Amino acid sequence: MNNSNNKTHNFSARVYYEDTDHSGVVYHANYLKFFERAREDLIGVKKLSNMWHEQKIGFAVYKTSLGFYEGAVFGDLLDIKTKWKKEGKYKIVFSHEAWRPNAKKAAVTCTLELVCLNADKKLMPIPDFEFLELSD
Amino acid sequence: MNNSNNKTHNFSARVYYEDTDHSGVVYHANYLKFFERAREDLIGVKKLSNMWHEQKIGFAVYKTSLGFYEGAVFGDLLDIKTKWKKEGKYKIVFSHEAWRPNAKKAAVTCTLELVCLNADKKLMPIPDFEFLELSD
Amino acid sequence: MNNSNNKTHNFSARVYYEDTDHSGVVYHANYLKFFERAREDLIGVKKLSNMWHEQKIGFAVYKTSLGFYEGAVFGDLLDIKTKWKKEGKYKIVFSHEAWRPNAKKAAVTCTLELVCLNADKKLMPIPDFEFLELSD
Amino acid sequence: MNNSNNKTHNFSARVYYEDTDHSGVVYHANYLKFFERAREDLIGVKKLSNMWHEQKIGFAVYKTSLGFYEGAVFGDLLDIKTKWKKEGKYKIVFSHEAWRPNAKKAAVTCTLELVCLNADKKLMPIPDFEFLELSD
Repeated sequence: MNNSNNKTHNFSARVYYEDTDHSGVVYHANYLKFFERAREDLIGVKKLSNMWHEQKIGFAVYKTSLGFYEGAVFGDLLDIKTKWKKEGKYKIVFSHEAWRPNAKKAAVTCTLELVCLNADKKLMPIPDFEFLELSD
Repeated sequence: MNNSNNKTHNFSARVYYEDTDHSGVVYHANYLKFFERAREDLIGVKKLSNMWHEQKIGFAVYKTSLGFYEGAVFGDLLDIKTKWKKEGKYKIVFSHEAWRPNAKKAAVTCTLELVCLNADKKLMPIPDFEFLELSD
Repeated sequence: MNNSNNKTHNFSARVYYEDTDHSGVVYHANYLKFFERAREDLIGVKKLSNMWHEQKIGFAVYKTSLGFYEGAVFGDLLDIKTKWKKEGKYKIVFSHEAWRPNAKKAAVTCTLELVCLNADKKLMPIPDFEFLELSD
Repeated sequence: MNNSNNKTHNFSARVYYEDTDHSGVVYHANYLKFFERAREDLIGVKKLSNMWHEQKIGFAVYKTSLGFYEGAVFGDLLDIKTKWKKEGKYKIVFSHEAWRPNAKKAAVTCTLELVCLNADKKLMPIPDFEFLELSD
C-alpha cells in the first residue's frame, strides 16, 4: 500500500435545505458531513460497510481543524477536493476543501486525522487492504 | 400499568441555529427530533438507556403523521405537549404538539406509533415496567 | 402544465454514518431528508434556487404521513421512488418510497403535501412553470 | 465589557438517538451542535435573536479545532464547559469541553473563533453590549 498520494479525489455534494440554517448559508457543522461522505467515497463504502458488519472495525475521527471563509448556499453543487497521507501504522491524515461553483478559492478547508477502532473502541492498525482507490 | 393517561406531558425545546433552514424557520424534519426528545423525557432516558444497553431492546417509530401550521424561529422556546395511549400489547400511540411562545394554537401537530424491537429487529411486547412517569 | 404524472422519478440516496443512529439503522427523521432531496431533484434545484433567491418564494411541507417497515443500514444505496399529483391551485401531493438494494418491498413510504409560500409566509399558487421535469 | 473571563460556563446537553450514529457513539459533527448551544446559552438566546431579527447581525464560526478522546453514548447528560476570551475588536475565542458523567477527563475538546457578520456577510466589530453573562 502506498503511504500517500498526490492526486486529488473529487466528490460532489449538493446543498439542500437540510444543510442550511436561518442565516442563509450552510450550517458550519454540516461541512464535516460533506467531508465524511467524500472520505467514504474515496475509501469505498462497500469496503467500509464490510469492515463494519463483518469485523466490527470502523474508522473514527481523532482530530480535526476547519477554516470557514465563505458560506455555501442552497443549490450549490460543491466540489469536495480531498488528499490523504498515511502517518505511521495508526493514522491517516486527510486534507479536504469545499469549493463553490466557479470559485477562485476554497470556501471551507479541513484537516482531519482518522484512526481505526474495534468494537471495544480499542485502537487498531489501519487495515492493509488497498482501500484508497486513488493509489497507483 | 395504565393503558392511557389524560394528563399532558410538557417538555421545552429551544430552537437553535442547527434546527433552522435558509427559509428562516425550523426545518420540517427536525420537529420529529423535538418530539422524540419529549418521548424520551416522558419514558425516562435512564430506563431507555438500560433497556438498550442491557437487554438490547429499543423503541422504533412505526408510523407517523404530521401537520405544519406555523414555522418556529431561532430563539423560540417551544412547549412540546404530549399525550399517550397504549393500544394492545405491541403499540403506544403518542400525540405531540409543538407550541411557540404565547401562541393560540399549535405550530406543528404529530401522531406517532411506537413499537418495541429486539436486537434482531423482531417485534416485542411493550415492556410492562412503569415507564410512563405520568401514570397515576 | 400537467396535473399529474404516472411515471416514477428515481433518485439515489447513499446511507452515510450521519444518517444512522445507535440502533444500527437510519434515524427515522432522516428519511424526510432523502425524500426532500428527491423532490428537489425532481423539480430542479436550479429552478428552486432561482425562485428563492430572486422571488423569495419557496415550497413548504404542509402535511406528511410516513410508514417505517424496514431499517436501512450504513452503505445502502437507497432508491427513492417518487410520484406526484397537483391538487387544485395550491397543493402538490407527492408519494415517496425508499427501497433498499434488492428489496421486494419499500422500506419506508411517505405521502407529503407541498405548498408555496412567499417571504411573508403567505400561501401562493403553485407557480405555473414547467417545473416537473417528468411532465410529458 | 471585559475582554476575558476566568469562570467556566456550564451547560447540560442530553445525548438523544438523533445525536448518535451506528457505531454506537455520538456522531463527531454533532459535538459542534452541543458547543453552539452552550455558546448561545452563554451569550443569551434572546440577545442573539434580537440582534438577528432587528439588526440582521449574526455570529459566524471562523475557525475551529476539535479533539475526540472518548465517545459519548445515548442517555449521557454531557456537561459542556466553556471559557471565552475576546481577541481584538473582531474575534471571540471559545474553549469548549464535553464531559461525560463521572468522567476524569474531557471526552471532546474544542477551540473555536467566532466573528460577527452583517446581512451582506461583511465583518463587523463584536457588539459592545454586555452579552457575556458571566462577566463580573
